Amino acid sequence: MERSELEDLVAANRILAGHGVIDAYGHVSLRSPDNPKRFFLARAIAPETVQVEDILEYDLDSNPIEPKGQQSVNERFIHSEIYRARPDVMSVVHNHSPSVVPFSVTGVKMRALFHMASFIGDGLPNFEIRKVKKGSDLLVRDPKLGAALAKTLGKSAAALMRGHGSVTVGENLQRAVGRSVYLEMSAIMQMQALLLSKKITYFDAAEVKASAPVQDYKRAWPLWREKALAKAKADRA
Amino acid sequence: MERSELEDLVAANRILAGHGVIDAYGHVSLRSPDNPKRFFLARAIAPETVQVEDILEYDLDSNPIEPKGQQSVNERFIHSEIYRARPDVMSVVHNHSPSVVPFSVTGVKMRALFHMASFIGDGLPNFEIRKVKKGSDLLVRDPKLGAALAKTLGKSAAALMRGHGSVTVGENLQRAVGRSVYLEMSAIMQMQALLLSKKITYFDAAEVKASAPVQDYKRAWPLWREKALAKAKADRA
Amino acid sequence: MERSELEDLVAANRILAGHGVIDAYGHVSLRSPDNPKRFFLARAIAPETVQVEDILEYDLDSNPIEPKGQQSVNERFIHSEIYRARPDVMSVVHNHSPSVVPFSVTGVKMRALFHMASFIGDGLPNFEIRKVKKGSDLLVRDPKLGAALAKTLGKSAAALMRGHGSVTVGENLQRAVGRSVYLEMSAIMQMQALLLSKKITYFDAAEVKASAPVQDYKRAWPLWREKALAKAKADRA
Amino acid sequence: MERSELEDLVAANRILAGHGVIDAYGHVSLRSPDNPKRFFLARAIAPETVQVEDILEYDLDSNPIEPKGQQSVNERFIHSEIYRARPDVMSVVHNHSPSVVPFSVTGVKMRALFHMASFIGDGLPNFEIRKVKKGSDLLVRDPKLGAALAKTLGKSAAALMRGHGSVTVGENLQRAVGRSVYLEMSAIMQMQALLLSKKITYFDAAEVKASAPVQDYKRAWPLWREKALAKAKADRA
Repeated sequence: MERSELEDLVAANRILAGHGVIDAYGHVSLRSPDNPKRFFLARAIAPETVQVEDILEYDLDSNPIEPKGQQSVNERFIHSEIYRARPDVMSVVHNHSPSVVPFSVTGVKMRALFHMASFIGDGLPNFEIRKVKKGSDLLVRDPKLGAALAKTLGKSAAALMRGHGSVTVGENLQRAVGRSVYLEMSAIMQMQALLLSKKITYFDAAEVKASAPVQDYKRAWPLWREKALAKAKADRA
Repeated sequence: MERSELEDLVAANRILAGHGVIDAYGHVSLRSPDNPKRFFLARAIAPETVQVEDILEYDLDSNPIEPKGQQSVNERFIHSEIYRARPDVMSVVHNHSPSVVPFSVTGVKMRALFHMASFIGDGLPNFEIRKVKKGSDLLVRDPKLGAALAKTLGKSAAALMRGHGSVTVGENLQRAVGRSVYLEMSAIMQMQALLLSKKITYFDAAEVKASAPVQDYKRAWPLWREKALAKAKADRA
Repeated sequence: MERSELEDLVAANRILAGHGVIDAYGHVSLRSPDNPKRFFLARAIAPETVQVEDILEYDLDSNPIEPKGQQSVNERFIHSEIYRARPDVMSVVHNHSPSVVPFSVTGVKMRALFHMASFIGDGLPNFEIRKVKKGSDLLVRDPKLGAALAKTLGKSAAALMRGHGSVTVGENLQRAVGRSVYLEMSAIMQMQALLLSKKITYFDAAEVKASAPVQDYKRAWPLWREKALAKAKADRA
Repeated sequence: MERSELEDLVAANRILAGHGVIDAYGHVSLRSPDNPKRFFLARAIAPETVQVEDILEYDLDSNPIEPKGQQSVNERFIHSEIYRARPDVMSVVHNHSPSVVPFSVTGVKMRALFHMASFIGDGLPNFEIRKVKKGSDLLVRDPKLGAALAKTLGKSAAALMRGHGSVTVGENLQRAVGRSVYLEMSAIMQMQALLLSKKITYFDAAEVKASAPVQDYKRAWPLWREKALAKAKADRA
C-alpha cells in the first residue's frame, strides 16, 4: 500500500474523532488495494492519536501479519467478517456516535430524509447481539459475532448495533468516513422531525437511487484530510 | 468590485462555516455592485478555506466570466436564478444548517418568535423539488430547478428546501449572512417551544413589519469579519 | 471606580460571551460604587471584544457622562430603569441566551429545579412589550419601555422578555453574571425534565430561601475572571 | 502516595472539566493507597486549574491532615462518608453534569442502554435530601448528610442527587472518571430514546453482569491523562 493511502487512513481516524463520531473508542479500516484478503487497521489506541506507524495489516481471520508487539482492537472481527462477506466494501467504520444509539434501542427505523445521508435509504438494519450470544458485553469479540453482524448488514451501507453504536461501509474510504459523519447528523434531524410531526416526508425510492451511489463527500475530503494530517504532524513536534 | 468587497465575501464564507451554518458544503454569493447581471461566488471548495483568489465572477446563466480552469459549484443556479427573479437581492446564501432541515420534511411552518430572526415573518415557503423533477438527487443542478426554487422563494427572505437545507437572501451581504445564522437559532428555539407548549406567541404582523426591515446585524458584522479575515491571513502563513 | 472594578466589568463581558450567554449582542453593567445614580456599560460593540477603554459611565437617564464620540447601546434603558427601581441591584445583564427564549413565548413558567439556579424560585416574570407598545421591534429603546420592564421584574432576580431574551440582576457583578450562566443551564434542564415527565420536583419554598441568597458563584469567578482578562490582554498584542 | 498517583488525580480533575462533566464546581477524590482511612482531594478551586500542590489529604471525618491554610470544599463529606461505607471504593466523583439532573427531578429511572455505561444496571438510586434535612441549600455540608447519601448509594456505582447532580464511584480512579463521562452521555441517549418510543430495549441482567465489571475505560485513559497533564504543565508556564 502506498504511503499516501496509509496517510488517508491516519486522516480518517482523526477526521472521525474531530467530528465527534468516535471518541477514545471506535475504529476505521481500509481493505488492502493490493490484496483483497488483507486490511489495515490501527492498533488499540485512541483514534485521534493515530500515526502511520500505528497501523497494522490483518488477514481475514483478523490475525495481524506483523504484530510488532502491539495490542489489536478487540472488535477487529467487525472488519474482517464484513470484508469477507462484502467484496464491494473497501472500508469499514465502527463507532458509538451518540445520536444513532437511541434508534438502536427502540423499534424506530432510521430513514433517509437528508440528502447528505441518502444512503440510509428506506431503513437500516439493527444488529441484536442476543440472537447470537446471550449475556454478552455487547462487544463483537470473535469471528462468529462478526459474521452475524455482517449478515445483519446484508447489502446495506450501514447497520445499527443495539445498545452499542453502528457500522458504516463504503466502496472507498472517503465514502465510509463521510457516511459515518452524516449518519450522526441525519439521526439528530430525524429525531427532531419526529418530535415536530408524525408525518415526515422521507426520500422516495427514486430519490434514494439517484442520490446514494454518487455521494463521495468529495468536496469535504480534501479539507478534512489536510487539517487531520497537519494535526498529526504537529503531534509529533 | 473593490478588494474590500471581495474580502467581505471571503469573510462571509468563513463566518458561516465558523457558526456551523455551512460545513464543507454550502455557499454564499454577492451580486456585483458594478453590474446587476453578474455575481461573485467561490469555486467548489470548502467554504472555510476560501481566499480572495478562489472567487469567480458569473453571469446570470451561471457561466463563469473567466473560468481560470476552476470547478464551479454544481448548485450555482440557486444564485443566478434568484438574482434574475429578485432585483432587490444583492446576496444569496445556500446552506444545510441542521435545525432547519426537520422543518423542511414536516408540514410544520417556521414562524417568527425571536427578534433576531423576525424576517421569518408569518412563515417561510418550502421548496419541494419533486414538483419539478421526480427522482432527483435533491440538488439544484440546472437553470430550470433554480428558477423553480426562485419562484417558491417569491418575495420571502428565505426558503426551506425539502430534505436538503435552505436559501437565505438579503439586500446586502451582512443581512443574508446574519439571517442564515439566526435562522438556524430560531429553528432550535421554535422546536423547543413546540415541545413545551402547543400555544406559542409568534410575532404579530406589526412586530414583523417593525423589526425585519431594520435588522442588519451591524453590531455582529465587524467582529465576525475581523475574526474571519485574521483566520484567512493566518491560513496563508 | 477602581481600575480593578473596570476590569471586573471587562471580564464580565467576556465571561458571558465565552459561555454562549451573549453573542455579538447582549450587555452587562455595573452600578457605580461611588455614586448610586451612575452606572458603567460598554459602548455598542461585541461584548467579547470589550476593553477597559470601551466602558462609558451613564446617569440614570442613560445619558453618557463623557460620550467620547462613541455609540451607546440602544437598550441602555434596561439598565438605567432597573437601577432606578431597584436600589438593591448593583449589576444588570441583558442577553438572548437561547434556551430561555422558548419559555418566553409559551405560558410555561421557569421554576427552580437546579441548586445553581435556585434564584429562579417559584417562577420568573415574563415581559410582554405589547402591553406598553404595540408593533415594536421588541427592543427596549426608551425610558418608558425600560421602566415597564423594571416593573415586570419587580423584586425578582431575573425576568424573561417575550421573543427576545432575559434580564438578570444581582447585588454584585459576580452574582448577576453567574445567574445568567446558570439561568440558561436551568432552562435546558427544565425543558428536558418536562419531556421526561409531567411531574417534576421543583425546589420548595424553604429550599429556595436557603439557597438563593448565599449563591455568589465564588468558586467560579476567579477562574472565569483570570481567563477572560488573559484573553483581553492577548487581544491587545 | 506516589507522585504519579497525585498526577493521576490532577489529570482526573482536568479530564472531567474537559468533558463538561464538571464546570467550575464538582470534585474528584482518590483513597490513599497507603492508608484506607485517608483520601486525597483538591482544595476549593475550579477543577480545571488544579495542580499537584492543590491536593490535600483528609481523614474520614473530612479533616485535612495538613490544612496549609487552604479552604476545603464544603461538600468533602460526600467523599469521606462514601469511603467509610464502601471499602471497595477507591475513588469518588461528585458533579453537576447537566443531562443527569432532569432524571433526578422526575420519577424516571436511569437504566443501562449503552455499553459504555452498563454500570447503570437496572437503575440508579436518587438521593432526596429532604428526607434528612428540610429546607437545605441542597449541599452535602456535614457528615450526617454525607452518611445519608452513602446509604442511598448502597452498593451502586452511582447515585443521582435530586436537583443537584450525581456521585459516581469506582474501584479505581479511571473507572470513577470514565463512569462520570459516560453517565452523562447515557442520560442524553436515554432521554432521546424515551422521546422516540415508549418501548426501549434496556440491557438485561446477564448483559449488565457481563459488561459492568470489566469496563475500565483503559483505551481512553492514557489519551485523556496525557492531554490533561500537558495542559497542567502549560498552565504553569
